[in-house]
Amino acid sequence: MTSTQFYGAASLDGFLATPDHDLGWLLQFGDIKGSSYPAFIREVGALAMGSHTYEWMLKHAIDAGQPWPYAQPTWVFSARTLRGIAGADVRFVRGDVRPVHQAMVQAAAGRNVWIVGGGELVGQFYDAGLLDELIVQIAPVTLGAGMPLLPRRITQPALRLTSATTLGGLFAELRYAVPRP
Amino acid sequence: MTSTQFYGAASLDGFLATPDHDLGWLLQFGDIKGSSYPAFIREVGALAMGSHTYEWMLKHAIDAGQPWPYAQPTWVFSARTLRGIAGADVRFVRGDVRPVHQAMVQAAAGRNVWIVGGGELVGQFYDAGLLDELIVQIAPVTLGAGMPLLPRRITQPALRLTSATTLGGLFAELRYAVPRP
Repeated sequence: MTSTQFYGAASLDGFLATPDHDLGWLLQFGDIKGSSYPAFIREVGALAMGSHTYEWMLKHAIDAGQPWPYAQPTWVFSARTLRGIAGADVRFVRGDVRPVHQAMVQAAAGRNVWIVGGGELVGQFYDAGLLDELIVQIAPVTLGAGMPLLPRRITQPALRLTSATTLGGLFAELRYAVPRP
Repeated sequence: MTSTQFYGAASLDGFLATPDHDLGWLLQFGDIKGSSYPAFIREVGALAMGSHTYEWMLKHAIDAGQPWPYAQPTWVFSARTLRGIAGADVRFVRGDVRPVHQAMVQAAAGRNVWIVGGGELVGQFYDAGLLDELIVQIAPVTLGAGMPLLPRRITQPALRLTSATTLGGLFAELRYAVPRP
């Protein structure tokens, strides 16, 4: 059955990126031994991301000569017009996440839906009662300020911790089931 | 040898309290099975806390008829004049953390120094090169906003994860060694 998931790294103090969307603090660790990513991405059938995440990838991957990394269809939420990528199945959308989620679930055909980020987009899926899991790799850093992991208050009912492991002795990976708001 | 430690609970998104210093999101979990606190506090010889933390305890513990919970001497940093507590060894200080830390280490006599919080006070000990360890119980909640765990950027060198465990199936406890700034 399709699960709608956030999966991604955050600082110990809960940020996905610095205030200027920098990820150098994360990339310094390189490939993490024992990463859960290969097993995770195999089960993903559709992706959604916000415009800042997409533009980060345009600049740091595509414009640096790297290929688009996803075979799965990817929905990009943006109020602005963004350029596409040759050979990538990228679909630009805006507004309500619910109809887009329906299309994503259909495209995923039983596999999972990955909300890549940023946190505000994850929050919109949460608000709509569509977020099932949070899978967070906590990097051994603090940023002090930045783009928040999930700018929502989820306290009652609380999240439910389903697993806590370490990755390469560097990161702690925490998995949570998300209650309906 | 004395280790200077932050020990405390934070939300998954890195807050120690809500914007109005509320801890209801934490207290809802009650006593946690398998808590590390009894073993931790046995090794503590001196405590420091900020004025908000102290006033929270005045209001929610002392004024509710509970005894002051610490046998160890406690330094309270505040620019304001705060009332004391009968029978509690509370010492009010302000300004530079370094001379206070010296007095705390001496009082601790080989046991550890606990920086209870808030985050800004923890940050001041970090800035002075006096913070050795972070021990954080990550509660299964997000707050979306609040009082930050540690409003500092610590990325290079990074923190060093020394252990990751779960407490009562609810919390993830992460322990880090802190590099010198």
